Amino acid sequence: MIERVHVIGSGRVGSAVTARLRERGVALSEHDPDVVLLCVPDTAIADVARGQTPGRGWIGHVSGATPLAALDPHERRFSLHPLQTFDRSGDAGQLDGAWAAVTGETAEAVTLARELAETLGVRPFELADSDRTLYHAGAVFASNYLVTLQRAAVLLGVPADALVPLMRRTIENGFELTGPIARGDWSTVEAHKRAIAERRPELGHLYETLAGATALLA
Amino acid sequence: MIERVHVIGSGRVGSAVTARLRERGVALSEHDPDVVLLCVPDTAIADVARGQTPGRGWIGHVSGATPLAALDPHERRFSLHPLQTFDRSGDAGQLDGAWAAVTGETAEAVTLARELAETLGVRPFELADSDRTLYHAGAVFASNYLVTLQRAAVLLGVPADALVPLMRRTIENGFELTGPIARGDWSTVEAHKRAIAERRPELGHLYETLAGATALLA
Repeated sequence: MIERVHVIGSGRVGSAVTARLRERGVALSEHDPDVVLLCVPDTAIADVARGQTPGRGWIGHVSGATPLAALDPHERRFSLHPLQTFDRSGDAGQLDGAWAAVTGETAEAVTLARELAETLGVRPFELADSDRTLYHAGAVFASNYLVTLQRAAVLLGVPADALVPLMRRTIENGFELTGPIARGDWSTVEAHKRAIAERRPELGHLYETLAGATALLA
Repeated sequence: MIERVHVIGSGRVGSAVTARLRERGVALSEHDPDVVLLCVPDTAIADVARGQTPGRGWIGHVSGATPLAALDPHERRFSLHPLQTFDRSGDAGQLDGAWAAVTGETAEAVTLARELAETLGVRPFELADSDRTLYHAGAVFASNYLVTLQRAAVLLGVPADALVPLMRRTIENGFELTGPIARGDWSTVEAHKRAIAERRPELGHLYETLAGATALLA
């Protein structure tokens, strides 16, 4: 059972994780912890890990893109990546409803990571270390690039407030594709291209690339 | 006051609109209606409009991309485009919370379209006829291309169920950009590109185009 955790890092993820552990009555201490959890920038993980004396406990990181090898020389190691976007509030509630990718090299490591997920209130799914980079690129598509779509739509004249119910419902409807490409209405797609080329040429390549990908993935 | 409407078309939008008008006690009749509302495919609007005898009432369409000129030879005309994605259920509740672009060439036409929006339970915003195509391309970005992002993320190994809370929260957080591009972490972006090139090359161009647009719009 995870009774004592040493969280290193107090950024967006670290502050929310710390708040949740505190809520759940887990001791936050650097003295002989069950788990050292690195919530530091990706580029700092290897350095911070090397600085930790291997003990009886586990060491893990919360990065989506970083391989477990960054935790060398530790062997009792794992990763738990909450698949969520966090603000700077440090609010533990941000973990509610989120899933988390858990990675370990042994059954024991995966069990530990799953137990930590349960403690944090996130739903774990297993991710192979060799699939991390690809998986993390997928997370970027779903979250960061969604922001880009919204900004493009606003630039094209859709009121920002009006986009929210549209984008929410697209998710709620199970990502069913509607609209001109789903209908094979290429004359509308061509009209979009012409209008963008004339008035927002900086978005022309993006529109066309997405139209092609949409037709491919439909 | 709009007391009698003749809805033509019973597709995704037409069926929901008909159900809502019925709920609100509006008479659905082709005899001397206050409004003839064309909920037909974009390519059919001009033909159906020409087949309608001009009367004392108004004629409108619900298309996002189609100019008002498609309603020739009618002069008492407008458009009301519910900015929403609809399923085939015909459920009036799909209109709840949605916004709608209203377009008219006279103050009277805009007033009529706003009144219809109120009757349908959608929030109107005014859209110039000359901006329709650009606006509609924006709607495609926000809704159809969001579907494409989700499909790409699934192809890259993110469990579909795990994407829903991530994408919802990205919206709820006001589309704040987080992740590697926001942090200027280009080594992670390069690692994504390499992993995609190796294992999902069909998504390489899409990833790169979106990365560039994200950096541009951030």
